[in-house]
Amino acid sequence: MTSLMNVSLIEIAQKTRASARKLGVLSLEARNSALEAIAQELELATEEIIVANEADLLAAETEQIAKPLYERLKLGKSKLKAAIEGVRDVIKLPDPVGAIQLKRELDTGLILERITCPLGVLGIIFEARPEALIQITSLAIKSGNGVILKGGKEALNSCQVLIKIIQQALTKTDVDTSAIQLLTTREEIRGLLALDEYVDLIIPRGSNSFVKYVQDNTKIPVLGHADGICHLYLDKSADLDKAISLTLDAKTHYPAACNAIETLLIHQEIASTILPQLATALREKGVELRGDDKTMAIIDNIIPVTEEDWLTEYSDLILSIKIVENGSEAINHINKYGSKHTDGIVTEDIKIAEQFLNQVDAAGVYHNCSTRFADGFRYGFGAEIGISTQQMPPRGPVGLEGLVTYKYKLRGNGHIAASYTGEKAKSFTHKDLI
Amino acid sequence: MTSLMNVSLIEIAQKTRASARKLGVLSLEARNSALEAIAQELELATEEIIVANEADLLAAETEQIAKPLYERLKLGKSKLKAAIEGVRDVIKLPDPVGAIQLKRELDTGLILERITCPLGVLGIIFEARPEALIQITSLAIKSGNGVILKGGKEALNSCQVLIKIIQQALTKTDVDTSAIQLLTTREEIRGLLALDEYVDLIIPRGSNSFVKYVQDNTKIPVLGHADGICHLYLDKSADLDKAISLTLDAKTHYPAACNAIETLLIHQEIASTILPQLATALREKGVELRGDDKTMAIIDNIIPVTEEDWLTEYSDLILSIKIVENGSEAINHINKYGSKHTDGIVTEDIKIAEQFLNQVDAAGVYHNCSTRFADGFRYGFGAEIGISTQQMPPRGPVGLEGLVTYKYKLRGNGHIAASYTGEKAKSFTHKDLI
Repeated sequence: MTSLMNVSLIEIAQKTRASARKLGVLSLEARNSALEAIAQELELATEEIIVANEADLLAAETEQIAKPLYERLKLGKSKLKAAIEGVRDVIKLPDPVGAIQLKRELDTGLILERITCPLGVLGIIFEARPEALIQITSLAIKSGNGVILKGGKEALNSCQVLIKIIQQALTKTDVDTSAIQLLTTREEIRGLLALDEYVDLIIPRGSNSFVKYVQDNTKIPVLGHADGICHLYLDKSADLDKAISLTLDAKTHYPAACNAIETLLIHQEIASTILPQLATALREKGVELRGDDKTMAIIDNIIPVTEEDWLTEYSDLILSIKIVENGSEAINHINKYGSKHTDGIVTEDIKIAEQFLNQVDAAGVYHNCSTRFADGFRYGFGAEIGISTQQMPPRGPVGLEGLVTYKYKLRGNGHIAASYTGEKAKSFTHKDLI
Repeated sequence: MTSLMNVSLIEIAQKTRASARKLGVLSLEARNSALEAIAQELELATEEIIVANEADLLAAETEQIAKPLYERLKLGKSKLKAAIEGVRDVIKLPDPVGAIQLKRELDTGLILERITCPLGVLGIIFEARPEALIQITSLAIKSGNGVILKGGKEALNSCQVLIKIIQQALTKTDVDTSAIQLLTTREEIRGLLALDEYVDLIIPRGSNSFVKYVQDNTKIPVLGHADGICHLYLDKSADLDKAISLTLDAKTHYPAACNAIETLLIHQEIASTILPQLATALREKGVELRGDDKTMAIIDNIIPVTEEDWLTEYSDLILSIKIVENGSEAINHINKYGSKHTDGIVTEDIKIAEQFLNQVDAAGVYHNCSTRFADGFRYGFGAEIGISTQQMPPRGPVGLEGLVTYKYKLRGNGHIAASYTGEKAKSFTHKDLI
């Protein structure tokens, strides 16, 4: 059975790859026309999509799935309309393909270009939200990539109808229908992760443990992050109003977000001044406070932190607090326990701020602003594929540029390498042309 | 034993990491001074280094190691002098750290920067050549990275003396001696590959099978490539003189190089014209020819190719030949059997050339020039860390930029995310400042 399943998966991947190759060389106009065709077809099929989604919702009710999952599963006309608008927003984004990053004359008539091109085939595994399928498909087509999608089983009906309509739309365009494929069984996830010959990038959207599972079980590069353990450090030279307002925003504005803070570090010299006021403000917002011994010495009703707390993304209204001797201790704590997502400092001392920004090893390092700004749309990328906490680029919030790679094109007129070695070797000119 | 060894390896890695963090924030002047100190100390210690290398050579003779390996192991005064000059060349390279890739106002007083920074700790595994240690150390310091080195056991004496001298030089500089460490036993390779918490990039230099082993046995990103199966396609509109000259250069100029071709694809319309002349020229250079049925029908004494040949990097004076119906068959063959290193086309037909450059999926795609140009120095990068055949950047020949990543710095004045959501939401300005 397994081998049979893999054969069919490989066939799907090969088809997607062949279609992706054609898609990858289409003009921007052709790719954008395909997106407009999809938007129109989705508009026309609104009723059909809503009916399919309602079937999923009914099944979900029967299975008594958790309320947040149900909410994510629920599409409804207004969410669908927004998703269709999203497709048209993608049309407006600049073309990520064909950007010339370097143009250099190596010698007369020998011209090197480094130019962006599609990655090839993307493998996307997402959870319940059916509109994710629409968004991802748009971004894949815009960037010239084929895509193999695997949605959550709760959204099966919705996804199957969406794919049918998208493929129907593509028949009227230059994009092959098999450039976009849907896998429908959970077992196929493992198979997809094994397709390192055919799939160039995996983007998992789901729980931290699921992303971790994906990272640990594939040789394909993974774009995304498991934990988002973000910190805010209140330095001794912090402005107290800013410190309180930034802590509240970073913790309570949307605690389930990966860019919300989990740990607050406070310089010992301001702890007794700021903590009582800060604790009151946080508790008014419903935040449970956990702290180290020094914190407990200053305010009451603090739950003692454990080592485990420093490593936990609560994704909830819980905050762990540590009082530190100085900026170096704060930086060391972050570099030891952080997840390299986003960490901030509040201080009026520029020197301390710069030390923090330089020495904290994270995709985002912030001074006097909320960690909640770590987001592709807020950065002005127009779209966000994911937030990467890996060391190598792309890092941090990743826009469409994360779906392309580059190749070097070298054009000559019979140039051979032997001319540039040995006696009478010609020299390279290495003249940048852009 | 194993666990004890791992503990000591982890300690080494932690020390390197701590030193790398300091090194990563040193000024360009401080990093360049450290390089100059190393160059001077190596000059002073020339005799000691040569003596250590001679001990390695003596042991190698006793063990009767292969001649090419012996040649690579042999340092000698002139190679050492060139390596020391290499250190001073690295001083002259532009700083890869601190380059501002993006500077954008998100809103008044809220400024985003994307800025290059060191990766952290590099793990380098190299073979016999002792001067590789000098080159890699220079590039690591220049890019602000710590490095854990593992040289071939044949070069043990040479490497130990080189490291001692380099560390001695560093005591007079701002760079910690423990930023540069040497592992001495083969068993430590596996341990090094498991240090994904402490090592940010592995660069293996060695045989294809060794690189493949490294790629398959670590979760750390690997910079490099296993196979270099490069192709040259002679289109029906090829200029015959260029076709012959480029084939000879790409195959015979340095057949052991990864950018030499292994397979020649010839359009059927020119095969009978060009093949006899080309075969004579290649055979004069000592090249063994293997070919498909159509090739054998045109010239004599051709060894029949097997499927295995298309997948083999000969690294030797052997060339496999296939006659194709058209450009699409050539492109399909390359995309099926190639290693995404470098592939070229010879043609005077610009349209066919562009189709080839766009549709061949490789780090380097060349028109009317030899594949042998795929090289960081020839591209004008000043240094080459390795050639990557992976799909994600960095791809192709990688210079110093392959040893840095970037981080986003966001500086505000109390900006909170809540101001930009809900009713009365402020808008982002997203104004590029560079």
